[in-house]
Amino acid sequence: MIRIGIIGIGNMGSQHCRKIYNGKVPGMKLVSVCDTNPDRLAWAKETFGEDVKRFSDSDEFYANSSLIDLVIIATEHYSHPDLAIQGFKNNLHVLIEKPAGVYTKQVKEMNEAAKRVNKKFFIMYNQRTNCVYRKLRDLVQSGEIGTLKRMVWIITSWYRPQSYHDSSAWRSTWGGEGGGVLLNQDPHQLDLWQWIVGMPRRVRAFASFGKYYNIEVEDDVTAYAEYDNGMTATFITSTGEAPGTNRLEVSGTMGKVVVESNTIKFFRNRIDERKFNKTCTGFGAPEAWECIVPTDGKNEQHIGILKNIVDVIENGAEPIAKGEEGILGLTISNAIHLSAWTDKWVETDNLDEDLFYNTLQEKIKTSTFKKNVSKNKTLDVRGTH
Amino acid sequence: MIRIGIIGIGNMGSQHCRKIYNGKVPGMKLVSVCDTNPDRLAWAKETFGEDVKRFSDSDEFYANSSLIDLVIIATEHYSHPDLAIQGFKNNLHVLIEKPAGVYTKQVKEMNEAAKRVNKKFFIMYNQRTNCVYRKLRDLVQSGEIGTLKRMVWIITSWYRPQSYHDSSAWRSTWGGEGGGVLLNQDPHQLDLWQWIVGMPRRVRAFASFGKYYNIEVEDDVTAYAEYDNGMTATFITSTGEAPGTNRLEVSGTMGKVVVESNTIKFFRNRIDERKFNKTCTGFGAPEAWECIVPTDGKNEQHIGILKNIVDVIENGAEPIAKGEEGILGLTISNAIHLSAWTDKWVETDNLDEDLFYNTLQEKIKTSTFKKNVSKNKTLDVRGTH
Repeated sequence: MIRIGIIGIGNMGSQHCRKIYNGKVPGMKLVSVCDTNPDRLAWAKETFGEDVKRFSDSDEFYANSSLIDLVIIATEHYSHPDLAIQGFKNNLHVLIEKPAGVYTKQVKEMNEAAKRVNKKFFIMYNQRTNCVYRKLRDLVQSGEIGTLKRMVWIITSWYRPQSYHDSSAWRSTWGGEGGGVLLNQDPHQLDLWQWIVGMPRRVRAFASFGKYYNIEVEDDVTAYAEYDNGMTATFITSTGEAPGTNRLEVSGTMGKVVVESNTIKFFRNRIDERKFNKTCTGFGAPEAWECIVPTDGKNEQHIGILKNIVDVIENGAEPIAKGEEGILGLTISNAIHLSAWTDKWVETDNLDEDLFYNTLQEKIKTSTFKKNVSKNKTLDVRGTH
Repeated sequence: MIRIGIIGIGNMGSQHCRKIYNGKVPGMKLVSVCDTNPDRLAWAKETFGEDVKRFSDSDEFYANSSLIDLVIIATEHYSHPDLAIQGFKNNLHVLIEKPAGVYTKQVKEMNEAAKRVNKKFFIMYNQRTNCVYRKLRDLVQSGEIGTLKRMVWIITSWYRPQSYHDSSAWRSTWGGEGGGVLLNQDPHQLDLWQWIVGMPRRVRAFASFGKYYNIEVEDDVTAYAEYDNGMTATFITSTGEAPGTNRLEVSGTMGKVVVESNTIKFFRNRIDERKFNKTCTGFGAPEAWECIVPTDGKNEQHIGILKNIVDVIENGAEPIAKGEEGILGLTISNAIHLSAWTDKWVETDNLDEDLFYNTLQEKIKTSTFKKNVSKNKTLDVRGTH
């Protein structure tokens, strides 16, 4: 039985608590929780009684680390790396919520700390359990789509009204979250992007800040990226459109795949376009078949990640989402921000981490933004991923 | 009866000849044709006998301008403005094929010449007759979509194999066409873009040149554009993808419209998102209805434009596509090229026309490109728009 402690029992953390406490993850047992907000601890007492230990600060929580085997970190974004590093120092396995952190400098330190101990490190990339994205990755990796040419992801189905932004003082601020749609809503898509088609070489991005809402961070982003082999990617995202779109298109020499509404359509060329191109003598195009691609239908989300963790720790299974991989999607995220801020190209493998960090600090320091916060609310996010 | 002369009876011009000669356009009569290629004149003789006069150069054609009322110019792109100006000088109505020209400097001169005569000026923007685009424009202009937020047009359904590029010496060269997919395939979409949602303020674009083919011009383009009101547009196009996509999404405060496969879907908000945003107290989004929007089903294409021209000249009807408007789509096209060449933003109402012209001339002059041309072929483009 893997004994679990959770730091941060707000929106996401309280969901993880419930699932583990209610036995949805065989092999895991909820032992302790930690939150600085007395209301959340009162909720824990009410919900779990004395079955689960409560701590009001992380030092005290870690002083009792012998009670647990694995710590889940579901606090605000900035604190993930520090709390994970403390987890490793206390010889625990660590699962962090997404994003890995706010800037890659910080996340590299976390990854270094993970290397120094013989413990497992995971990140809650629950969308990697989604059958349609797993299947798309399979189609790419097995070569079914051929050599890749383009990815276009329109992911604007993240509508959030002003009341959402006003629900906590930290929400949608540079100081509290380090960004808007990229840091809060998109970490899954930015991870799936690199997980499915790989890391782009360079990024040129455009963003608006507080266009749709009374917020200081980005609520609308268009990013263009290039790969070494000539492939391009376009990523369009916003919290300001209703109803939005979630449509991912990946095209290659063997045709194109469109993922939308949980369906995978593969418009498959009978022969590779590059072969066709060499032999065609007229105006034509390769014969293409519209194929509905089946999946295994499994989409376990958070529970899928938690079950996999049990399997990794107990049986040596392959992790679905290694914590060390959190830096990849975050690198794309940071590159998009940096490109939008500087109006310049950003190379992903040579991202100026100091410039990113200093610009972000400058934004925090010079923020004149006054939020009209109703009061800190724990929103019911069940059913949102 | 409007007497018609056509200069350039290659791919498009020969189609116009056939339609008019065969009486598909009541009120128009084909009187004369002009082409520098003896093969094309032989085709005209064989097809129309002595019913239609033939000229081998445009000076001779215009010396006989009293035979006709309207000249159709369906020659290579560069020559449209000069031949149109000659048409106006000879006191003729003028219809030019798209694009209006290759650079806006040249097109402005044509528009000035049109102003100086009391004759009508048209451009073959036949896609403006397409019921789905007319309907989408109606939804925008009548305010059904509300205040616009975004346009995304993925128009990659322009697959052209190497044999197409090799079919004429002038094809897909800076000297012959002044560009690739933007100048040859996209003029309709670039016009519809501005016709439906208006001209963007500034453009930032990325293009590859000869990525998929042995050509020197662009075969893959991603353009991002911004409007004064904060609206953004993304335009993705290529001749190198098979099967491609033609999906146009326009979103506004009242929802989003998706045009794909000749169908219009309007995901319509029950109340305006901006109103909803002010009153929502939770995590929600406006109630949205998936509506299939009917059209009048009419899509007359080239014949629609030609019939409208008869109606304008004889009955004073409103033109579907005024020649003077050709500069709008071309301005977007030039802005995309210039931005991609210079790796900088380009303002559409302050486009550096000299820089565009000089850069293009430089590309023509320094071209070391050797084409492997089979022989000049008139391709059968019936059924392509």
